[in-house]
Amino acid sequence: MLPRLLSAITAPPAHGFAEAQRHLDSLTKPPRSLGRLEEIAARLAVLRGGAPRVERPVIFTFAADHGVVAEGVSAYPQVVTAQMVENFLRGGAAVNVLARQAGARVVVADFGVANPIGGSSELVRCPLGAGTANMAVGPAMSREQAVAAIETGARLAEAELDAGADFLATGEMGIGNSTAASAITAAITGLAALRVTGRGTGVEGAVFGRKVHVVRRALAANAPDPRDGLDVLAKVGGFEIAGLVGVILAGAARRVPVALDGFISGAAALVAVTLAPEARHALFASHRSVEPGHAAVLERLGLEPYLDLEMRLGEGTGAALFIHLARAAALIWNEMATFKSAGVSDKSVSDKVTDKNVADKS
Amino acid sequence: MLPRLLSAITAPPAHGFAEAQRHLDSLTKPPRSLGRLEEIAARLAVLRGGAPRVERPVIFTFAADHGVVAEGVSAYPQVVTAQMVENFLRGGAAVNVLARQAGARVVVADFGVANPIGGSSELVRCPLGAGTANMAVGPAMSREQAVAAIETGARLAEAELDAGADFLATGEMGIGNSTAASAITAAITGLAALRVTGRGTGVEGAVFGRKVHVVRRALAANAPDPRDGLDVLAKVGGFEIAGLVGVILAGAARRVPVALDGFISGAAALVAVTLAPEARHALFASHRSVEPGHAAVLERLGLEPYLDLEMRLGEGTGAALFIHLARAAALIWNEMATFKSAGVSDKSVSDKVTDKNVADKS
Repeated sequence: MLPRLLSAITAPPAHGFAEAQRHLDSLTKPPRSLGRLEEIAARLAVLRGGAPRVERPVIFTFAADHGVVAEGVSAYPQVVTAQMVENFLRGGAAVNVLARQAGARVVVADFGVANPIGGSSELVRCPLGAGTANMAVGPAMSREQAVAAIETGARLAEAELDAGADFLATGEMGIGNSTAASAITAAITGLAALRVTGRGTGVEGAVFGRKVHVVRRALAANAPDPRDGLDVLAKVGGFEIAGLVGVILAGAARRVPVALDGFISGAAALVAVTLAPEARHALFASHRSVEPGHAAVLERLGLEPYLDLEMRLGEGTGAALFIHLARAAALIWNEMATFKSAGVSDKSVSDKVTDKNVADKS
Repeated sequence: MLPRLLSAITAPPAHGFAEAQRHLDSLTKPPRSLGRLEEIAARLAVLRGGAPRVERPVIFTFAADHGVVAEGVSAYPQVVTAQMVENFLRGGAAVNVLARQAGARVVVADFGVANPIGGSSELVRCPLGAGTANMAVGPAMSREQAVAAIETGARLAEAELDAGADFLATGEMGIGNSTAASAITAAITGLAALRVTGRGTGVEGAVFGRKVHVVRRALAANAPDPRDGLDVLAKVGGFEIAGLVGVILAGAARRVPVALDGFISGAAALVAVTLAPEARHALFASHRSVEPGHAAVLERLGLEPYLDLEMRLGEGTGAALFIHLARAAALIWNEMATFKSAGVSDKSVSDKVTDKNVADKS
């Protein structure tokens, strides 16, 4: 399945942008005056090859545990992963609230949570194991597990696309996963661990120092190959991150937009574009996280985020907020009157001001 | 009426912030991890003195013409003001599209449009004249007209508040009004005309130079008193800007949030806080416009905008987009589970990691 996905990912036609901007310039507003909202509209239109649409968004909130928590890299105990999954299933977490507001469905999937999760038919159960192995001492998972997790994520996304989803968004939960994201980012960008490691859920002082050191140890112990996304993902990634790689690839293969959440989603995107560089055309960086590694991820992806609200929660919360902007862009494209239809003058008057007039008043 | 409004505007109790943050910290997320969304929630809660609510937002899009267009300061002819008002009334402008998306009502009012506006029962007709006089050669309006326009705007806002509006937003249309906003900003902040004058709807080259020069001439001809907001407003303002001052004051007097749109709305807010400094507690800077004067306005108001999408359209479009963020903040406050209710551990584990553990792995 993975080779099929990768070969299906190609760049949309570049001439689409001029065409899209011509449509946007015909609408009753000064040209480009909606700024980056027009950029979103044009990117959505080019990707889709027609009028953009954000009617049925789906947020994939994938959860898994991380063996690296044995090193004491998180401010919360591992059981919180399972507890938060239960919170997602009851609709009480931030991503639920923001998804409801945005009219988005949330797909909550267990990609490998270590502790038992209370029964709910809403949970998609596809665990690859009881959490990854500790990457500080060896690979987090096997290459086969990484492929299986990607394919599982892709299949979940394809099922939603088949059911009519027109906008995908990534989200995650996993105590310890910002450590994995830092290791992926350091491996692929070549930046030092200290540059791409942040405070995650809120670690401070000695714990933060330990986290940086653990990222260094994981890279030294595993020596991931930066040109091989699968190798990086298997050695220092996570099951839920691998699942999100699958969502990204599935969206890109169908030319459906994928809104990235924050740092951990961004690390998944780094892996995805290593596997299929043209996947970047489908990616939208919803917001800039306060995690320092996120800036490095965005720079490597060539993406400028649309929101900067100093958030660092994950779950898909930034992507959920971005849905409003993407939908606004699509509605602007589809619903605004044109200068012609509205009978509004789009003629510049500046050349009608005579030199005499100017000279008189100067 | 104006003295009554001004005396009703006081600061909300400062202790409210600690209380609000305690509530936000009890929700199932790492403390402060929703960043500025929590700041919005706290500000809304403190202002309201209870759980925030953004259920019935109203955008006031006020229109008027400006005598200063005789100087050739705009890229569009004056008739576009009336044409765009007609576009608002038909629902085809950007603000209509974005307001519909945000579930907001748009109040379109004629505060003094020079050209006839085709009949529509939706239009609120309260013109103060057929546009202002040319501020480059004398006062734009009389002090009495400025007060009347403020009171008219305040009355429109109060009618919406009485009908259940819980969130106000400002917007405007008026060919030439970015020149007025620049003059107001220069007058009140003391900054040079060149620093606070931008390209408006898109003027370039000689027209831009003329616009800067016109702002200088307006200040020289009128010598507005920077400590007297009414004097500034009358001499170099506009009827629609005065109307928005009224909306801001009415919202602040009732402790209802007022989302400012861009530069022209910001100039109205500068005038409003000159009249009633405590009005600032009710103000939310929805976005950062590309107009250079807007940064000066925001700095003087002490507000940091929530969106930065390189927009410069006005109408209320930035404020309309901000409604989603304000509503998200209110929903987070009201709908998220607490650590206690969800049975999620909020205990830090960092102190449980033994020194031995750390020493072993280093």
